[in-house]
Amino acid sequence: MHSPLNQDLKKKVAELLVVRASGHALDSQRQYPLWELPNKHLKFLLNEGVGGVILHGGSVQELQQRCRELRNWSSKPLLLCADVEEGIGQRFDGGSFLPPPMAMALRYLQDRQDALDLSEQYGKCIGNQALKCGLNWVLAPVCDVNSNPINPVINMRAWGEDPHIVAELVVAFHKGLVSQGVLSCAKHFPGHGDTTVDSHLDLPIVEKELFQLHETELIPFKSLIEKGVNSVMTAHILFKNIDPFQIATFSKKFLTNLLRETFTYKGLIVTDALVMNAITSHYGCGEAAVMAFQAGADLILMPEDPFQAIDSITAALIDGRIPFYRLDQSIDRKQKEMSKIKSISLESVEDNLFSDKVFETTFDYKFTKKLIDMSIKFKNYAQIKFVEESINFVRVDNIFSSSSFLSSSSPCLVIPEKNGYKNILSHSLGIDPWETNSHKPFILERFERGSFLLQLFLRGNPFVGDSHFTEPWEKIVEQLQSKGRLSALIVYGSVYLWQNLSNILYPSIPSCFSPGQMEGAQEKILQTFFKANQKQSRIQNNDIQFTD
Amino acid sequence: MHSPLNQDLKKKVAELLVVRASGHALDSQRQYPLWELPNKHLKFLLNEGVGGVILHGGSVQELQQRCRELRNWSSKPLLLCADVEEGIGQRFDGGSFLPPPMAMALRYLQDRQDALDLSEQYGKCIGNQALKCGLNWVLAPVCDVNSNPINPVINMRAWGEDPHIVAELVVAFHKGLVSQGVLSCAKHFPGHGDTTVDSHLDLPIVEKELFQLHETELIPFKSLIEKGVNSVMTAHILFKNIDPFQIATFSKKFLTNLLRETFTYKGLIVTDALVMNAITSHYGCGEAAVMAFQAGADLILMPEDPFQAIDSITAALIDGRIPFYRLDQSIDRKQKEMSKIKSISLESVEDNLFSDKVFETTFDYKFTKKLIDMSIKFKNYAQIKFVEESINFVRVDNIFSSSSFLSSSSPCLVIPEKNGYKNILSHSLGIDPWETNSHKPFILERFERGSFLLQLFLRGNPFVGDSHFTEPWEKIVEQLQSKGRLSALIVYGSVYLWQNLSNILYPSIPSCFSPGQMEGAQEKILQTFFKANQKQSRIQNNDIQFTD
Repeated sequence: MHSPLNQDLKKKVAELLVVRASGHALDSQRQYPLWELPNKHLKFLLNEGVGGVILHGGSVQELQQRCRELRNWSSKPLLLCADVEEGIGQRFDGGSFLPPPMAMALRYLQDRQDALDLSEQYGKCIGNQALKCGLNWVLAPVCDVNSNPINPVINMRAWGEDPHIVAELVVAFHKGLVSQGVLSCAKHFPGHGDTTVDSHLDLPIVEKELFQLHETELIPFKSLIEKGVNSVMTAHILFKNIDPFQIATFSKKFLTNLLRETFTYKGLIVTDALVMNAITSHYGCGEAAVMAFQAGADLILMPEDPFQAIDSITAALIDGRIPFYRLDQSIDRKQKEMSKIKSISLESVEDNLFSDKVFETTFDYKFTKKLIDMSIKFKNYAQIKFVEESINFVRVDNIFSSSSFLSSSSPCLVIPEKNGYKNILSHSLGIDPWETNSHKPFILERFERGSFLLQLFLRGNPFVGDSHFTEPWEKIVEQLQSKGRLSALIVYGSVYLWQNLSNILYPSIPSCFSPGQMEGAQEKILQTFFKANQKQSRIQNNDIQFTD
Repeated sequence: MHSPLNQDLKKKVAELLVVRASGHALDSQRQYPLWELPNKHLKFLLNEGVGGVILHGGSVQELQQRCRELRNWSSKPLLLCADVEEGIGQRFDGGSFLPPPMAMALRYLQDRQDALDLSEQYGKCIGNQALKCGLNWVLAPVCDVNSNPINPVINMRAWGEDPHIVAELVVAFHKGLVSQGVLSCAKHFPGHGDTTVDSHLDLPIVEKELFQLHETELIPFKSLIEKGVNSVMTAHILFKNIDPFQIATFSKKFLTNLLRETFTYKGLIVTDALVMNAITSHYGCGEAAVMAFQAGADLILMPEDPFQAIDSITAALIDGRIPFYRLDQSIDRKQKEMSKIKSISLESVEDNLFSDKVFETTFDYKFTKKLIDMSIKFKNYAQIKFVEESINFVRVDNIFSSSSFLSSSSPCLVIPEKNGYKNILSHSLGIDPWETNSHKPFILERFERGSFLLQLFLRGNPFVGDSHFTEPWEKIVEQLQSKGRLSALIVYGSVYLWQNLSNILYPSIPSCFSPGQMEGAQEKILQTFFKANQKQSRIQNNDIQFTD
């Protein structure tokens, strides 16, 4: 295995790997040291020919410096990608942070053309900022049809529940995105919308037949393939009635027969991250990389051990389990897609790129604000009546991943506090405020005697699982309003949670829904609730008609 | 007031101001938008001659870019400072993060020379990294003698409880710091060690006589003045028996008579931040700036409204309330001190400054580790016995300011979880786990039935107030150990809290104290508790003999 010939072969194999790195420059700054390679390994692997890096964490300034450094370490052009489905600001501090795609689907029901225009602009905003940061490959759009409302991992990340609406919106998004000269990625093939398990946590199993996928899940993928999407990401899901032996990521039936042959797809196929529990709890690292490549994948994303992945694929080529032409095909595809990247010299980008209104342009800023305003839905925007000893109860899924919308100066804390509320910040790793097996779940004796302003920052998020579906929010709303102790309800995040709570809410209670959790949304809503005068206090019935 | 003459005068006055800015480049990235000037104002003020900027937030890379940008905006050499008393990493991600100064005082009691050597190295480490980031003025050392153990704001930031030890240690620190070519700052004159109120929150009042200050508080300041400290920062404290009319920051008696005349101090006098509640709740912004300058201060730090501060001081000069020579004196002092800064061209610093082992050198890294190891004190390092349904209960003061030591991958969460513990993260804005008026304060029915690993990240911190002195930790420890449900106790932070708890703790319970809260300390302690084998499990009695 150590002949010069094998070394050359390994370098070719390495081109297919996309490894994970922190957006920060220093090893000590890594947020996920278990997943993010230390610089020593990264430098070595890039020098050995590794073809791509997926980045996470840091500010837009740090990201740009980092991309420049990674390119210097690499012997050839590098794929640099990130999961920035909802704006660069979702992952990198300083970029625009947009309401989730589902907001566009909600808009579609009111005004189709506006939703399509907004989706195209959404893609442009992400593509343009990605390029400025040094990225050249955006891992979006999510093409999954969120047909299962209790989907814990896709949910608001989807562009809707209806396959045809999703298809139209992702095509519009894609048009905007690629117009900026970055590559796109349709995910998670053949569809992750009808699952109840998060593949970050365990393996989801779906019982649908192939004809059913053709009727729903596959529609957006087909549309995007027609539009020349640059890559398709596979799902770690077992479709037991279609390929009972292999999850889609490892399934020749899905990747080669369906995607390459039936759909005549010519672009790149990339696996979803191979470090996810759905994979690592069932397969070894080298084995997983070989199986994915064998099934038809071109690029191997985040193998648990990149060195082992390279060795195992190389061995599989040498011993004939995988024919050599497959390697050449994948490398050709990669080069062909990469030729579509708009090349900008990061060195030539002036320092003042990172000044106000230059990185996030006035246009981006106004677009973000417009999207936020458009997506906020007041059910009742009456002024909140202040009662002594009132509590501003803020609930977030994960305290550690809430920094993009929550700090000590966030409007969701500052505005109620100014209005006499006592802040309580509750999170899933904290002490539960409820008894789950009770009709009076909130343990009211633990709180002051006043009313509650409930602000729920809950949505389906990777790794969080389905916590907000199991938390007793319906019972809590019923309990508080029956005691006259619910002063207002705001849901930031899941439209499904909002619909459930909205259905049982007394119409007299000020309430609002925002798909986006960002500070701009908090400010708009709370300023309305705390400033609205009596003349405006009328019950509005502009509820969202969405799930039928 | 708008004559060209006044414009020139205003530019001179502006030189005395030190305004606050975020270490991040973009307005949207500011963490404290109420305090941190937007770039438009910052650029205008620097162009108008403002003489200094205090920075907060961002990574070391961002800080360096930011310092370069601020220098470009300024028409003359700029003071660039930060509160990096415990290492650059305390405020700027990527820098070394050291255990608090009190750890050196604890070391002093065991080995004087080692403590002095470590303190000098401590200063070198901060000075060198500060200079690399673009800073030229370090707002350290704290010279306050922490003679009051329940001091909520100084506490572990102090270099001890004994004035002579503090004096020796700050002199050693200062030697190391200024050897790197940055300016120093002795704070908070005439001494903030004997207070029970945090001046960030309200005005502390101290009843001591001047001779008492000479016996204790003033000793470290005198020593540092002899060593040529570049600046002295004033305290917002009313010494009612010395100057019953003015807090020290506004007191001619303290700043001019005592500091300038009695101590013949020639360096700069800078106010503590004028935005602090102790000031803003009693004085207008322009008034406060004039009063400080009139009393003898040279530099005005963080006036609430810099424009108003400039106008008010200018008016006071024109109408003769302050003689013009005072302005010239302060500007001369500023120029004289700034001539001592080691000039390095930030432009010439290579990009790879921010690579591993270059920014934080191997020497810095080893020094940090040595300090952490040296400062950790095991009372009993027996292995923790695992019981079913056990809870890892982590308590932090402020969830929003804990990011330098707490993330989802922190050892304090990850190691106990791997060992079967359920994590609960509790913080002062969350739901209290206790009833304060009870002998059984922990509400045990809210938890699983197993044992508790208590990890308390509590220390005196600005803005937090004295929460951990009012929280019922002693009662909780008594309650848990009497029920056999305390599996271990770790205090990260306050030595006073540790001493109180250590006094009542059963000797059989594994327990440990670390002045530093950083991940390195967590890892070292928890690896000991979860890996120690039975041979090592013996009770150690190396308790700290500190307060007598």
